Amino acid sequence: MSDNQVLDAIHARRSVREFEDRDVPDEIIEKIIEAGTWAPSGLNNQPWRFIVVKKGEKKGALAKLTHYGHIIESAPVCILVFLDAKASYDRTKDIMAIGACNQNILLGAHSLGLGGVWLGEILKKKSDVKELLQAPASYELMAVLALGYPTQKKRTSSRKDARGVTFNP
Amino acid sequence: MSDNQVLDAIHARRSVREFEDRDVPDEIIEKIIEAGTWAPSGLNNQPWRFIVVKKGEKKGALAKLTHYGHIIESAPVCILVFLDAKASYDRTKDIMAIGACNQNILLGAHSLGLGGVWLGEILKKKSDVKELLQAPASYELMAVLALGYPTQKKRTSSRKDARGVTFNP
Repeated sequence: MSDNQVLDAIHARRSVREFEDRDVPDEIIEKIIEAGTWAPSGLNNQPWRFIVVKKGEKKGALAKLTHYGHIIESAPVCILVFLDAKASYDRTKDIMAIGACNQNILLGAHSLGLGGVWLGEILKKKSDVKELLQAPASYELMAVLALGYPTQKKRTSSRKDARGVTFNP
Repeated sequence: MSDNQVLDAIHARRSVREFEDRDVPDEIIEKIIEAGTWAPSGLNNQPWRFIVVKKGEKKGALAKLTHYGHIIESAPVCILVFLDAKASYDRTKDIMAIGACNQNILLGAHSLGLGGVWLGEILKKKSDVKELLQAPASYELMAVLALGYPTQKKRTSSRKDARGVTFNP
């Protein structure tokens, strides 16, 4: 730990896949999503949209759409992040903006004592997800962020190599 | 300000486009890039690559490749972020991972007293950028992050609306 909580959070955040059987209050979920919306986006177009799925029938059905369904089953809350074609102006930049948004959500969650994991395999079934949740036609699923209170402190794994940095070529 | 420096940084970070005429030490640049590499990526493929351009001839030439060249001229350091096709496994997920990486870099820089801006218009000239910097053939430019010490404290603008959140549809 240093006196820089931001770098500490960036370093200490890990994917969490098992959660306590404890609800996350809506005001915490809203605070975390709001953190996501502070991400930068090209022309400030904010192309992200969110659908929150908590315990219940639809979460069970969502879990069936991915090999990682047990994680969705365990997580008390899933934040589904969509790209809204109506807000899009440049697909590459919009997808990057959503990546930045997701990272804010994961860091924000971590800073509030939650853990989570960014699920991507479920994108194979993105049409089924849209149908299940009756999402607007212009929404395209980009990620499912499964969140909750971690069952135990994750052990910090060793530092990754900072690959491929070239100074002043 | 709260006691949560992470959420504070997420909220307080703004695009900074004018910089003091003061170099950023290499160890700070490396620390910031390392923060970027702690972003999550699909299958942990870490598809990001970086080229750092500091004051000098090539930064001048880089500035000529965008309408926002004055920002590159003012910034003592530009971190160019590339997607490496050799590391790619899913273009959408890789681009999102790079967005998360960029956000870590911007938040890390902010936490260390620097400011910066994510430049995207220059992607129109991504081939020229690659040629200028003699980047490997497999690199594709995703963003230029222009960084430095801000000339003055940015005024915090009002809160954005958290758009498009739907709970339990």
